Amino acid sequence: MTTAMGPGPEFDRIRAIAQALGARGAGLGDDCAVIPDGDGHLVISTDASVGGIHFRRAWLTLTEIGWRAAAGALSDLAAMGARPVGLLAAIAVPKGAAPDETVELMGGIGEAAEASGTIVIGGDLSAASEWMVTVTVIGRAERPVRRAGAAAGDELWVTGALGAARAALLAWESGADPAPAARAAFARPVARIEAGVWLAEHGATAMLDLSDGLAADAHHLAAASKVRLEIDLTRIPTAGAAVPAALERAVEPPLLAAQGGEDFELLASLPASFGEAGQRAFEAHTGVALTRIGTVQRGSGVRLLLRGERVSLEGFDHFRAEGAGGER
Amino acid sequence: MTTAMGPGPEFDRIRAIAQALGARGAGLGDDCAVIPDGDGHLVISTDASVGGIHFRRAWLTLTEIGWRAAAGALSDLAAMGARPVGLLAAIAVPKGAAPDETVELMGGIGEAAEASGTIVIGGDLSAASEWMVTVTVIGRAERPVRRAGAAAGDELWVTGALGAARAALLAWESGADPAPAARAAFARPVARIEAGVWLAEHGATAMLDLSDGLAADAHHLAAASKVRLEIDLTRIPTAGAAVPAALERAVEPPLLAAQGGEDFELLASLPASFGEAGQRAFEAHTGVALTRIGTVQRGSGVRLLLRGERVSLEGFDHFRAEGAGGER
Repeated sequence: MTTAMGPGPEFDRIRAIAQALGARGAGLGDDCAVIPDGDGHLVISTDASVGGIHFRRAWLTLTEIGWRAAAGALSDLAAMGARPVGLLAAIAVPKGAAPDETVELMGGIGEAAEASGTIVIGGDLSAASEWMVTVTVIGRAERPVRRAGAAAGDELWVTGALGAARAALLAWESGADPAPAARAAFARPVARIEAGVWLAEHGATAMLDLSDGLAADAHHLAAASKVRLEIDLTRIPTAGAAVPAALERAVEPPLLAAQGGEDFELLASLPASFGEAGQRAFEAHTGVALTRIGTVQRGSGVRLLLRGERVSLEGFDHFRAEGAGGER
Repeated sequence: MTTAMGPGPEFDRIRAIAQALGARGAGLGDDCAVIPDGDGHLVISTDASVGGIHFRRAWLTLTEIGWRAAAGALSDLAAMGARPVGLLAAIAVPKGAAPDETVELMGGIGEAAEASGTIVIGGDLSAASEWMVTVTVIGRAERPVRRAGAAAGDELWVTGALGAARAALLAWESGADPAPAARAAFARPVARIEAGVWLAEHGATAMLDLSDGLAADAHHLAAASKVRLEIDLTRIPTAGAAVPAALERAVEPPLLAAQGGEDFELLASLPASFGEAGQRAFEAHTGVALTRIGTVQRGSGVRLLLRGERVSLEGFDHFRAEGAGGER
């Protein structure tokens, strides 16, 4: 069975693949694959970062490329409420790269692994025409939180603040250097492992990580859970580093933040009983902000509201990261 | 701790990476990563196939590229004596490829998974400048057989027959079409899952799969086990499809077979007590040939003998697959 996904050509392809695989495939479309294991579950995800697509070599050091590739994959574990038990990295090295460069990139992967309490347990080296890092993460979760599971009456919460990584991308694309905080958000994202585990233990009904941006990723949660999400854009926690980028472009900051991919924050639905007491307990435990941004209702799709008015973010497509363009 | 590996620039890089990772890495250098799990072990490997490096698009259909990538990764499980429980495929798709092409490639991955008794449980799609398939396989083994473990007095055995995939590669590189049997060996290799599980259950002390060729891979087993391997080349089971390729090049067929990579047969050390009774039981159970090709001795390195004379295969370097050249 495939988890239902939101619209888009990438997801059309995944749907076509799942259909063609039939019984040869299972569980496609969620953040991670889940295998029952003893009293719990193994949770596994694989994630490719390709030079020229997910990053430009000129933007980042190789250490940062490695860190970011690993953190992006670890974020998929966070989105299931899983703790990592190990990580494998398949690296394609451009011909002509010095051996030290591969070591530098793997160093970044190792640092990101360590920051999430895990280690590198395997990998693969091959040549290619561009840098490419495919990171596979293995974790364990007592109760994996999938994208399906949100129910009408639940409330929607998001961790941290959004939009800083997008601000860095917009700066690079306009030929400027990003502000340090924006650059750090893009180059050294942090997988929200502790946050994900805590939310899983405290009743999260559905969860995913924001890799394509809240406005896009919310559709996946809505489709998988067969519900409608109503999101109040004025409540979106906008990263400080995203504000100047928005104002320069005469865009309200929460709109830029809602489209900000690569933040790797978590979007979770929780029963209404979770409330402010839950929020305070979460923040005390993790040191990370948790913000209520909307509600789960009967129906389908995602309704974005700005001061009570319905907003479509389709019109902001010129913000799509053309420099790192295409399917991401 | 890193498993000791044989010589070569690729392995120098892995050694440098393992050293740089220090405590952030563990278990690098074997066919698979191993994680203790309940009464048994999880066994995991990731394996990249890159267009222009591991295959040429003109040689293979996309179904075959997918099959081969998956079978190569599954072969790493076979080499540990593990049974697969699932497979993830990260696919990088060249810009301009039709959606159907991705489905075709994934179809080949699904077929190879099914042939090994498993399914596709996850993956990732991204764009790139060339086809690239990174397959991660997860398996279980009661007693994983590593590369370390061969002891002086053991005997060396190899499954199946060697050299057919190499014959196909040599044909393509000389601009000819390979014979059908050679082509099939390259395009649709079979991971020796049942053979690996059986050998693990019947006392294999060390094991690996032959992806770079017996002459090269034997060095890894010798280095990991801290032993010397003595291999009688005249005993090497040469695939019928490899014989014409050898004779055309005025090379003795077993020499070509010993350098034949991509066969994905298993090399295992077993106690001398295994003997012909073990061989007959293996062949009856699996339907695959098992051939005794040498012995394990105190010392280090690999001694190749041809009619009692020591042979170096270094001189055959012009056979290295230049068309799929570089680090593989």
